[in-house]
Amino acid sequence: MELRKVNLDEKFELIKEYESPRIVGELNGQHVKLSKLKGEFVWHQHEQEDEMFYVHRGRLRMQLRSGDVMINEGEFFIVPRGVEHNPVAEGECWIMLFEPAGTINTGDKTNEKTKQQLDWI
Amino acid sequence: MELRKVNLDEKFELIKEYESPRIVGELNGQHVKLSKLKGEFVWHQHEQEDEMFYVHRGRLRMQLRSGDVMINEGEFFIVPRGVEHNPVAEGECWIMLFEPAGTINTGDKTNEKTKQQLDWI
Repeated sequence: MELRKVNLDEKFELIKEYESPRIVGELNGQHVKLSKLKGEFVWHQHEQEDEMFYVHRGRLRMQLRSGDVMINEGEFFIVPRGVEHNPVAEGECWIMLFEPAGTINTGDKTNEKTKQQLDWI
Repeated sequence: MELRKVNLDEKFELIKEYESPRIVGELNGQHVKLSKLKGEFVWHQHEQEDEMFYVHRGRLRMQLRSGDVMINEGEFFIVPRGVEHNPVAEGECWIMLFEPAGTINTGDKTNEKTKQQLDWI
Protein backbone atom coordinates (compact mmCIF):
# COMPACT_ATOMS: atom_id res chain seq x y z
CA MET A 1 0.00 0.00 0.00
CA GLU A 2 1.29 3.42 -0.91
CA LEU A 3 2.27 5.58 2.02
CA ARG A 4 1.35 9.15 1.23
CA LYS A 5 -0.08 12.00 3.18
CA VAL A 6 -3.09 13.89 1.90
CA ASN A 7 -3.45 17.66 2.08
CA LEU A 8 -7.15 18.50 2.02
CA ASP A 9 -6.80 21.97 0.47
CA GLU A 10 -4.57 20.66 -2.32
CA LYS A 11 -7.06 17.92 -3.13
CA PHE A 12 -10.04 20.27 -3.03
CA GLU A 13 -8.24 22.48 -5.57
CA LEU A 14 -8.49 19.59 -8.02
CA ILE A 15 -12.25 19.32 -7.70
CA LYS A 16 -13.95 21.54 -10.27
CA GLU A 17 -17.57 20.44 -10.08
CA TYR A 18 -20.16 20.25 -7.32
CA GLU A 19 -21.69 17.02 -5.99
CA SER A 20 -18.92 14.92 -7.47
CA PRO A 21 -17.18 13.14 -4.60
CA ARG A 22 -13.61 11.91 -5.10
CA ILE A 23 -11.82 9.24 -3.10
CA VAL A 24 -8.68 10.32 -1.23
CA GLY A 25 -8.15 7.43 1.17
CA GLU A 26 -9.11 3.88 2.03
CA LEU A 27 -8.86 2.06 5.34
CA ASN A 28 -10.60 -0.92 6.90
CA GLY A 29 -13.05 -1.17 4.01
CA GLN A 30 -14.01 2.49 4.37
CA HIS A 31 -13.43 5.32 1.93
CA VAL A 32 -12.42 8.87 2.71
CA LYS A 33 -13.99 11.15 0.13
CA LEU A 34 -13.94 14.87 -0.59
CA SER A 35 -16.79 16.74 -2.21
CA LYS A 36 -17.75 20.33 -2.94
CA LEU A 37 -21.42 21.07 -2.48
CA LYS A 38 -23.59 24.00 -3.42
CA GLY A 39 -27.36 23.99 -3.33
CA GLU A 40 -29.78 21.31 -2.25
CA PHE A 41 -28.87 17.65 -2.76
CA VAL A 42 -31.70 15.11 -2.58
CA TRP A 43 -33.60 13.32 0.18
CA HIS A 44 -32.26 9.78 0.52
CA GLN A 45 -31.08 7.16 2.98
CA HIS A 46 -28.49 4.41 3.06
CA GLU A 47 -29.80 1.02 4.08
CA GLN A 48 -26.52 -0.44 5.33
CA GLU A 49 -24.11 2.42 5.74
CA ASP A 50 -23.52 5.05 8.40
CA GLU A 51 -22.13 8.22 6.84
CA MET A 52 -19.95 10.89 8.40
CA PHE A 53 -19.88 14.46 7.13
CA TYR A 54 -16.97 16.64 8.26
CA VAL A 55 -17.14 20.28 7.14
CA HIS A 56 -13.74 21.61 6.11
CA ARG A 57 -14.92 24.92 4.59
CA GLY A 58 -18.28 26.67 4.69
CA ARG A 59 -21.27 25.13 6.37
CA LEU A 60 -23.83 22.48 5.61
CA ARG A 61 -27.46 22.28 6.63
CA MET A 62 -28.35 18.64 7.18
CA GLN A 63 -32.08 18.30 6.76
CA LEU A 64 -33.54 15.42 8.72
CA ARG A 65 -37.17 14.42 9.18
CA SER A 66 -36.70 15.32 12.87
CA GLY A 67 -35.35 18.81 12.08
CA ASP A 68 -32.28 20.50 10.64
CA VAL A 69 -28.73 20.37 11.96
CA MET A 70 -26.31 23.10 10.85
CA ILE A 71 -22.79 21.68 10.54
CA ASN A 72 -20.20 24.45 10.68
CA GLU A 73 -16.52 24.45 9.75
CA GLY A 74 -14.58 22.12 12.03
CA GLU A 75 -17.67 20.09 12.92
CA PHE A 76 -18.90 16.67 11.88
CA PHE A 77 -22.17 14.84 11.90
CA ILE A 78 -22.86 11.13 11.53
CA VAL A 79 -26.03 10.08 9.71
CA PRO A 80 -26.85 6.55 10.85
CA ARG A 81 -28.03 3.99 8.34
CA GLY A 82 -31.73 4.13 7.64
CA VAL A 83 -32.06 7.82 8.52
CA GLU A 84 -33.42 9.97 5.73
CA HIS A 85 -31.36 13.07 5.11
CA ASN A 86 -30.87 15.86 2.61
CA PRO A 87 -27.65 17.91 2.65
CA VAL A 88 -28.21 21.55 1.70
CA ALA A 89 -25.31 23.96 1.13
CA GLU A 90 -26.51 27.54 0.96
CA GLY A 91 -23.01 28.70 -0.02
CA GLU A 92 -20.12 26.62 -1.30
CA CYS A 93 -19.25 23.92 1.19
CA TRP A 94 -16.25 21.56 1.21
CA ILE A 95 -16.82 18.28 3.00
CA MET A 96 -14.83 15.20 3.90
CA LEU A 97 -16.90 12.01 4.02
CA PHE A 98 -16.26 8.68 5.72
CA GLU A 99 -18.35 5.73 4.68
CA PRO A 100 -17.99 2.13 3.57
CA ALA A 101 -16.35 1.65 0.18
CA GLY A 102 -19.07 1.32 -2.43
CA THR A 103 -21.56 3.63 -0.74
CA ILE A 104 -23.67 5.33 -3.40
CA ASN A 105 -24.03 9.08 -2.90
CA THR A 106 -27.79 9.14 -3.42
CA GLY A 107 -28.43 5.99 -1.37
CA ASP A 108 -31.80 4.48 -2.14
CA LYS A 109 -32.56 7.07 -4.82
CA THR A 110 -31.26 6.97 -8.36
CA ASN A 111 -31.37 10.19 -10.33
CA GLU A 112 -29.17 12.61 -12.25
CA LYS A 113 -27.06 13.22 -9.13
CA THR A 114 -26.16 9.54 -8.72
CA LYS A 115 -22.47 8.72 -9.17
CA GLN A 116 -21.89 5.01 -9.69
CA GLN A 117 -18.14 5.20 -10.11
CA LEU A 118 -15.89 7.54 -8.17
CA ASP A 119 -12.38 8.49 -9.15
CA TRP A 120 -9.41 8.74 -6.85
CA ILE A 121 -7.57 12.02 -6.77
CA MET B 1 -28.79 6.35 17.85
CA GLU B 2 -28.34 9.89 19.09
CA LEU B 3 -28.12 12.49 16.37
CA ARG B 4 -25.65 15.11 17.44
CA LYS B 5 -23.02 17.12 15.70
CA VAL B 6 -19.49 17.27 17.08
CA ASN B 7 -17.41 20.44 17.21
CA LEU B 8 -13.75 19.44 17.26
CA ASP B 9 -12.47 22.51 19.13
CA GLU B 10 -15.11 22.16 21.83
CA LYS B 11 -14.22 18.52 22.34
CA PHE B 12 -10.48 19.21 22.40
CA GLU B 13 -11.10 21.77 25.15
CA LEU B 14 -12.29 18.90 27.34
CA ILE B 15 -9.07 16.94 26.91
CA LYS B 16 -6.59 17.88 29.63
CA GLU B 17 -3.90 15.24 29.27
CA TYR B 18 -1.65 14.10 26.45
CA GLU B 19 -1.78 10.66 24.81
CA SER B 20 -5.24 9.98 26.17
CA PRO B 21 -7.55 9.46 23.19
CA ARG B 22 -11.28 10.00 23.65
CA ILE B 23 -14.07 8.67 21.47
CA VAL B 24 -16.29 11.25 19.75
CA GLY B 25 -18.07 9.16 17.14
CA GLU B 26 -18.86 5.67 15.94
CA LEU B 27 -19.87 4.48 12.49
CA ASN B 28 -19.69 1.17 10.65
CA GLY B 29 -17.71 -0.45 13.45
CA GLN B 30 -15.13 2.34 13.40
CA HIS B 31 -14.38 4.89 16.07
CA VAL B 32 -13.58 8.55 15.64
CA LYS B 33 -11.18 9.62 18.37
CA LEU B 34 -9.51 12.84 19.41
CA SER B 35 -6.16 13.02 21.11
CA LYS B 36 -3.65 15.66 22.14
CA LEU B 37 -0.03 14.64 21.66
CA LYS B 38 3.22 16.12 22.82
CA GLY B 39 6.54 14.36 22.63
CA GLU B 40 7.46 10.97 21.27
CA PHE B 41 4.94 8.15 21.48
CA VAL B 42 6.24 4.59 21.01
CA TRP B 43 7.14 2.37 18.07
CA HIS B 44 4.32 -0.08 17.46
CA GLN B 45 2.11 -1.64 14.80
CA HIS B 46 -1.46 -2.83 14.53
CA GLU B 47 -1.87 -6.34 13.19
CA GLN B 48 -5.43 -5.99 11.91
CA GLU B 49 -6.20 -2.31 11.78
CA ASP B 50 -5.44 0.50 9.40
CA GLU B 51 -5.23 3.80 11.24
CA MET B 52 -5.87 7.30 9.98
CA PHE B 53 -4.28 10.37 11.55
CA TYR B 54 -5.81 13.74 10.68
CA VAL B 55 -3.98 16.77 12.11
CA HIS B 56 -6.38 19.45 13.33
CA ARG B 57 -3.83 21.69 15.09
CA GLY B 58 -0.05 21.66 15.08
CA ARG B 59 1.92 19.05 13.20
CA LEU B 60 2.92 15.45 13.67
CA ARG B 61 6.05 13.67 12.55
CA MET B 62 5.15 10.10 11.69
CA GLN B 63 8.27 8.03 11.99
CA LEU B 64 8.27 4.97 9.76
CA ARG B 65 11.02 2.45 9.13
CA SER B 66 11.09 3.77 5.56
CA GLY B 67 11.51 7.40 6.68
CA ASP B 68 9.57 10.20 8.32
CA VAL B 69 6.40 11.87 7.07
CA MET B 70 5.51 15.30 8.46
CA ILE B 71 1.74 15.66 8.73
CA ASN B 72 0.74 19.32 8.88
CA GLU B 73 -2.52 20.97 9.88
CA GLY B 74 -5.28 20.01 7.46
CA GLU B 75 -3.48 16.87 6.32
CA PHE B 76 -4.01 13.20 7.02
CA PHE B 77 -1.97 10.04 6.77
CA ILE B 78 -3.12 6.43 6.81
CA VAL B 79 -0.85 3.87 8.47
CA PRO B 80 -1.74 0.48 7.00
CA ARG B 81 -1.96 -2.55 9.27
CA GLY B 82 1.36 -4.20 9.89
CA VAL B 83 3.41 -1.04 9.32
CA GLU B 84 5.55 -0.02 12.27
CA HIS B 85 5.17 3.63 13.19
CA ASN B 86 5.99 6.09 15.93
CA PRO B 87 4.08 9.40 16.15
CA VAL B 88 6.26 12.25 17.39
CA ALA B 89 4.83 15.68 18.23
CA GLU B 90 7.55 18.26 18.69
CA GLY B 91 5.00 20.82 19.87
CA GLU B 92 1.43 20.22 21.01
CA CYS B 93 -0.55 18.49 18.32
CA TRP B 94 -4.29 17.81 18.13
CA ILE B 95 -5.28 14.82 16.05
CA MET B 96 -8.47 13.11 14.93
CA LEU B 97 -8.13 9.35 14.50
CA PHE B 98 -10.21 6.85 12.54
CA GLU B 99 -9.77 3.20 13.26
CA PRO B 100 -11.80 0.10 14.07
CA ALA B 101 -13.54 0.16 17.45
CA GLY B 102 -11.36 -1.63 19.95
CA THR B 103 -8.03 -0.62 18.41
CA ILE B 104 -5.42 -0.33 21.17
CA ASN B 105 -3.34 2.84 20.98
CA THR B 106 0.00 1.10 21.42
CA GLY B 107 -0.88 -1.80 19.08
CA ASP B 108 1.38 -4.80 19.64
CA LYS B 109 3.21 -3.08 22.53
CA THR B 110 1.92 -2.86 26.08
CA ASN B 111 3.47 -0.24 28.32
CA GLU B 112 2.63 2.74 30.49
CA LYS B 113 1.12 4.54 27.48
CA THR B 114 -1.37 1.76 26.79
CA LYS B 115 -5.04 2.72 27.23
CA GLN B 116 -7.30 -0.32 27.42
CA GLN B 117 -10.53 1.56 27.95
CA LEU B 118 -11.38 4.83 26.28
CA ASP B 119 -14.06 7.23 27.41
CA TRP B 120 -16.52 9.04 25.20
CA ILE B 121 -16.61 12.80 25.44
